[in-house]
Amino acid sequence: MNEFDKIDAAVRAEVLAALRLVLPAHCLLSDAEELRPYECDGLTAYREMPLAVCLPEHERQVIDVLRTCHRLGTPVVARGAGTGLSGGAMPHAQGVVLSLARFNRILRVDPQARLAVVQPGVRNLAVSEAAAPHGLYYAPDPSSQIACTLGGNVAENSGGVHCLKYGLTVHNILRLRIISIEGEIFEIGGAAPDAPGYDLLALFIGSEGLLGIVTEVTVKLVPKPELAQVVMASFGDVAQAGDAVAAIIAAGIIPAGLEMMDKAATAAVEPFVKAGYDLNAEAILLCESDGTPEEVAEEIARVTAVLTAAGAQELRVSQSEAERLRFWAGRKAAFPAVGRITPDYYCMDGTIPRKRLAEMLAAIVQMERKYGLRCANVFHAGDGNLHPLIMYDASLPGDWARAEAFGAEILELSVALGGSITGEHGVGIEKINQMCVQYTTPELQAFHRLKEAFDPPGLLNPGKAVPSLHRCAEYGRMHVHAGEIKFPDLERF
Amino acid sequence: MNEFDKIDAAVRAEVLAALRLVLPAHCLLSDAEELRPYECDGLTAYREMPLAVCLPEHERQVIDVLRTCHRLGTPVVARGAGTGLSGGAMPHAQGVVLSLARFNRILRVDPQARLAVVQPGVRNLAVSEAAAPHGLYYAPDPSSQIACTLGGNVAENSGGVHCLKYGLTVHNILRLRIISIEGEIFEIGGAAPDAPGYDLLALFIGSEGLLGIVTEVTVKLVPKPELAQVVMASFGDVAQAGDAVAAIIAAGIIPAGLEMMDKAATAAVEPFVKAGYDLNAEAILLCESDGTPEEVAEEIARVTAVLTAAGAQELRVSQSEAERLRFWAGRKAAFPAVGRITPDYYCMDGTIPRKRLAEMLAAIVQMERKYGLRCANVFHAGDGNLHPLIMYDASLPGDWARAEAFGAEILELSVALGGSITGEHGVGIEKINQMCVQYTTPELQAFHRLKEAFDPPGLLNPGKAVPSLHRCAEYGRMHVHAGEIKFPDLERF
Repeated sequence: MNEFDKIDAAVRAEVLAALRLVLPAHCLLSDAEELRPYECDGLTAYREMPLAVCLPEHERQVIDVLRTCHRLGTPVVARGAGTGLSGGAMPHAQGVVLSLARFNRILRVDPQARLAVVQPGVRNLAVSEAAAPHGLYYAPDPSSQIACTLGGNVAENSGGVHCLKYGLTVHNILRLRIISIEGEIFEIGGAAPDAPGYDLLALFIGSEGLLGIVTEVTVKLVPKPELAQVVMASFGDVAQAGDAVAAIIAAGIIPAGLEMMDKAATAAVEPFVKAGYDLNAEAILLCESDGTPEEVAEEIARVTAVLTAAGAQELRVSQSEAERLRFWAGRKAAFPAVGRITPDYYCMDGTIPRKRLAEMLAAIVQMERKYGLRCANVFHAGDGNLHPLIMYDASLPGDWARAEAFGAEILELSVALGGSITGEHGVGIEKINQMCVQYTTPELQAFHRLKEAFDPPGLLNPGKAVPSLHRCAEYGRMHVHAGEIKFPDLERF
Repeated sequence: MNEFDKIDAAVRAEVLAALRLVLPAHCLLSDAEELRPYECDGLTAYREMPLAVCLPEHERQVIDVLRTCHRLGTPVVARGAGTGLSGGAMPHAQGVVLSLARFNRILRVDPQARLAVVQPGVRNLAVSEAAAPHGLYYAPDPSSQIACTLGGNVAENSGGVHCLKYGLTVHNILRLRIISIEGEIFEIGGAAPDAPGYDLLALFIGSEGLLGIVTEVTVKLVPKPELAQVVMASFGDVAQAGDAVAAIIAAGIIPAGLEMMDKAATAAVEPFVKAGYDLNAEAILLCESDGTPEEVAEEIARVTAVLTAAGAQELRVSQSEAERLRFWAGRKAAFPAVGRITPDYYCMDGTIPRKRLAEMLAAIVQMERKYGLRCANVFHAGDGNLHPLIMYDASLPGDWARAEAFGAEILELSVALGGSITGEHGVGIEKINQMCVQYTTPELQAFHRLKEAFDPPGLLNPGKAVPSLHRCAEYGRMHVHAGEIKFPDLERF
């Protein structure tokens, strides 16, 4: 054991001893085999073993864990279901993982006020299930909604296929109860449309666990539409499909969902899900309309007209709820379906203005050649939110590095086209270098000062979401000097 | 001239000399007669003469003014059209007013991307007028929309009669360009649904000029609905009208607008506007539906059924666009109409959960007796946003103090009923004491730290929106010891 290891062991012993004073034995994991499941989230390419995992059952315990970590200077990484795709819940080697998995109760459903109060470990879909008897549901529906939790959704400001019409998480949360690193309780937001003082609610939503720990979430519930129908349109050309998306929005239609999949994606999905997709098409669009039967009939007619004018080869309208769900099932299973045809895949998450979709698709084809890797494209097209799935094989030397560079090039092109480096998956550790491209130095400084306002010692999820200025200087130098993108080791703080 | 006045005069001379170096003569006002129009905003009960008024014409000048003030430690109060109702633009005696009145150009209307880029001094209605040729408009419509500016709307997170369906300012802004007190430029937000990093956009919207100065605003434009119709319903009892509002929302209807006026308000309005209101009713509701003709017909039928079941005595549906506008004209002119029947009025702005409307109305009747003042009630009822108009006569000794105490009691009851102290007018100087009631000490501390992150010397609009902890301690003591509310002198910082 060298000098550094000895120090680490001493720190570890001190932290564990302190945590044992505030948590019962079954709420604290510290053996390597118990910690293993926590070493990564859905971004499995990055892994780190934490010092310990805390599984508090009561808010008092959350406060005590945070105060303990604050006193000892121990980093804290919050975790929901671990389904995140940007490494936001990847542990810190000298820190604890604070799992909110046991905060899994729905505290209240109030159909008259159209809201539900839930703990952060409640699964996204469980909220809609609890609201269903009242004809209500919770609108944001990430593809992982069976597993992902509300706390994680808040941390990442999650979207879903219906967020074009119903908004992201930030548009569907009324109130949060948050514990600061110092163990103070904050109640932010409320049922009123506006809250006096600064809007901390939107600030916390999407802050990736860097500002505080959520212990209670009040969500908006919306009435289930009477009817929903999906139009599935096939295109012989991806650029045409991209332009059709822009044409729908330009026609003043705001569909309940507007998704696009290219041939590589439908080819992966169809044998797996049997959604009924047109396998001859270069791209398909799924466009949902919801509302009263009259509204739906009228909107479907308008959508059909726009798609036909835009060059759709084939159009099918779902004729039953079962068929509608089948159309969506293919889209929702696209990630695992691609996972069946490639040893590994890397899901990107840039956004671009809708009218640049065709351009981006053409550029991705070029990048496939450049990096020698295939890419299946699954887009929340109505939002201009891209999820290219870059296929690679982690067991082949150099494959992951090429996949990562491919992904970085997509993100940087997204910024160049007037978009951003993330639509809904967050920055985490994955896109931290691209933050240097997205923001100027004064903007990043403002982010750091803001972080300091809520977490002065910088213990909450250090090294994620917002790069240090030093890191950006480093990244900028590499960009200029090496002529191509390489990645420095991840900084720890 | 005493010692203090001499110091003030020296400071004033220094500030003016420094500003003359960065602004041409026609952009700097310093004579008392030129400054007089700036001594208050729409909350005329509070007045203060500024040291100077800057009227920059270019962003470079805004940066230079801010850098100058930063260097000299001079407070800066931003101002749009001065229509604010909470004193947010009231000058600081040792500070400058930074008027954005000359930033009045619409830079770009992009119908395909459905957005407009405008300068902060552009009037709210001018944006909709510029978008009209494309069948689009800007949704938030404060009653002052003919005069109020986008910059002011951003500072106050303004609402309007249609924000129930279309959201507040925060829901309709895509991007802001902001200058910090240090003269740095920040571009926040973007056309993408989510932005990486912290959500600074929502944080800045509604921050009442405390965090930065806006020089460019990108707003969302939405398609003009094909048709809009208003149902006007009369009730013999205000509580019944309040319950009818809750019933409409509970029925799953989200009207384009849902407003309530009591008898005192309609009695003031009708002779002024001739809107056709039922003067025998104790309260009237205006409920708007918009969309395609089919959607509107269906929603109007549902609204009518709910209102009838809730005990409406008379129902009228607007039969033409002219009639619809007349129904709204009465509502929009309610404030000036009340101004005609009383020497002065004080407009409050609390919010409460919709189902508590009837309770609040009953309590206001009690308060009218307690304070010996009349109150006309004009509510954005669908949002639970109250605008009680307390009538008083500033020339009668004690009348303003009673009006102010009456207003404070309404706000504090709003908080007690589960609501908040402002729906859309902001805190300003008016509601700064009630912030002590709304928030806990750690919450207020977080606000102060956040302010410090963006404006370390605290020069932007000091003394507004967020009370000092000292002030709250003071206010709390008075509450407890005197048994009734009194107001300390306004603090300067």
